[in-house]
Amino acid sequence: MQNDRLIRALRREPVDRTPVWMMRQAGRYLPEYRATRSRAGDFLSLCRTPELACEVTLQPLARFELDAAILFSDILTVPDAMGLGLYFADGEGPRFERPVRDAAAIRRLAVPDPAAELGYVIDAVQLIRKELDGSVPLIGFAGSPWTVATYMVEGAGSKNFAHIKGLLYDAPADLHRLLDTVARATVAYLNAQIAAGVQVVMLFDTWGGVLTPRAYRDFSLQYMQRIVAELVAGPDGSRVPSILFTKGGGPWLEDMAETGCDALGVDWTVNLDEARRRVGHRVALQGNLDPAVLYAAHRVIRAEVARTLESFGHGSGHVFNLGHGIHPGVDPAHAAAMIDAVRELSPPYHAT
Amino acid sequence: MQNDRLIRALRREPVDRTPVWMMRQAGRYLPEYRATRSRAGDFLSLCRTPELACEVTLQPLARFELDAAILFSDILTVPDAMGLGLYFADGEGPRFERPVRDAAAIRRLAVPDPAAELGYVIDAVQLIRKELDGSVPLIGFAGSPWTVATYMVEGAGSKNFAHIKGLLYDAPADLHRLLDTVARATVAYLNAQIAAGVQVVMLFDTWGGVLTPRAYRDFSLQYMQRIVAELVAGPDGSRVPSILFTKGGGPWLEDMAETGCDALGVDWTVNLDEARRRVGHRVALQGNLDPAVLYAAHRVIRAEVARTLESFGHGSGHVFNLGHGIHPGVDPAHAAAMIDAVRELSPPYHAT
Repeated sequence: MQNDRLIRALRREPVDRTPVWMMRQAGRYLPEYRATRSRAGDFLSLCRTPELACEVTLQPLARFELDAAILFSDILTVPDAMGLGLYFADGEGPRFERPVRDAAAIRRLAVPDPAAELGYVIDAVQLIRKELDGSVPLIGFAGSPWTVATYMVEGAGSKNFAHIKGLLYDAPADLHRLLDTVARATVAYLNAQIAAGVQVVMLFDTWGGVLTPRAYRDFSLQYMQRIVAELVAGPDGSRVPSILFTKGGGPWLEDMAETGCDALGVDWTVNLDEARRRVGHRVALQGNLDPAVLYAAHRVIRAEVARTLESFGHGSGHVFNLGHGIHPGVDPAHAAAMIDAVRELSPPYHAT
Repeated sequence: MQNDRLIRALRREPVDRTPVWMMRQAGRYLPEYRATRSRAGDFLSLCRTPELACEVTLQPLARFELDAAILFSDILTVPDAMGLGLYFADGEGPRFERPVRDAAAIRRLAVPDPAAELGYVIDAVQLIRKELDGSVPLIGFAGSPWTVATYMVEGAGSKNFAHIKGLLYDAPADLHRLLDTVARATVAYLNAQIAAGVQVVMLFDTWGGVLTPRAYRDFSLQYMQRIVAELVAGPDGSRVPSILFTKGGGPWLEDMAETGCDALGVDWTVNLDEARRRVGHRVALQGNLDPAVLYAAHRVIRAEVARTLESFGHGSGHVFNLGHGIHPGVDPAHAAAMIDAVRELSPPYHAT
């Protein structure tokens, strides 16, 4: 690999500068993404056509000096492959035609075979690896079982999580059965991504932060830990680093660091100096610029990048990123300002 | 006052049992509320008609053995009185006809005279106090300047807070000017509520949790602290206890406890034992049952109430509440189960 800064930082090995990538770096803020998506017809066709998924995965790398590519896909491909019927209503978020609401529906769920039912993702991974040609590592990903289950049970995005929290409090055994099934599906899916060539995996736990501390451990973290434990090595026999990201998970970083993962994604509500103090040397940290900083002028972006680098401080173990996905309305030139600032300002933190 | 448990708990004075009320206790989950609202025509008419605001304020007290009434109103009455033109689009949240987007618009804002421009709220307070007739204390409230400003700048509810965060990062002096104006308006408004008879005040900081730790201190907490410092005494000369509630403010409880307020609202993402350990004896704590628990069966509600009481532990200084407003879809019988459980299970924590 020509640029292995990300892998090295995730392993807390020395690097020349802090690696940087952005959550949702292949996304709507890029005009070239919007053009490809419009050619694809819709978001799901884009996900399901390996050539187009590969094309949009590579777009941000053509524009910016990024240290990683991340597979273009969606966390809801797994429940879609389970037969729930994923669709996107115009101007709204994802929805399922057949949400899972009771014990009988949960029992009927089967773990999909990634090769057969998610083959379009596996094909995309192989194609992207070929196109990347060893330039930067490719990150694969999945949703956390809790987060994926919220969509499966609610049938759509939610504000109060009435249905899944109803299950959680009233029928926890049913919810555990659902999470167990999703966790097994996720292990098979991520291991298929690894076999096809992803070199890092990330679990997105977008909705773990809506839980109580106890429910977070029992219904979200426990299943992420199981997934991390069951990840296979890459085709060359090397261990594939894993990143856990719970949005709003700041209070639980210590617990997250105990799962055996290699790094934690940290949103902007916790400073990296505090996060680093709390997790010690157990894991690397990824983050954590407020994505809204990218609405601001270049000098502000540069100052906030400087503050974030200073907050993590000296040494390896920091992967620069936003604290959440880049907002669709951001000017790509502002993303470039952030990436340039990381490249220019971070080397002193790695000087020996 | 016949029932002063709330006031005593906020002052950390001995009580016979833990006082209990619910955020949004006068709200859509109650059929009698929906009936009054439908008579009023719409939500804003309900807020603006003192007799109807009084009626819905008292409805939950007729049904449940609650230890406090909370004024029925909305946090956006203040910017409405500033001339922004509040309205509610069908099935959507609040919106402003004239959002505040630039320095010129911010400079044009004036602090409204509560007696003249928010007289309907003051009248409602007087009416409610008369109807309560000394039974339980009446809580007045306002939104935090940051939270109110998010609506003023975005013009509606928001997901990414693009406009106000653009101001925060790009033109912080303009945002400070806006927050200063809203803070002065809020002081005048809360002091008018106190003069009219509210016996406790609460600041709702619904959106403080979307900020970085530094931005939270500078743009939200600082202004709440100023408001707390400028609250007047009640007509009888007694100090009026204040409660600060930042949703998602768990990481910052120590800072919040330093503001001079009497109590902190705590959402369900932090356990009360941890919160109590962190704030010591400086403040009382209010909360923190996950509102989604009220979707569950009575025995589950009772078990979760027991867990919450046990988490706070022995002694005064706990006001039982939900960690956020009661969800509109909750069966009122489930709210009753929670309130009954607090009444039945809390006395042992106050035995001497």
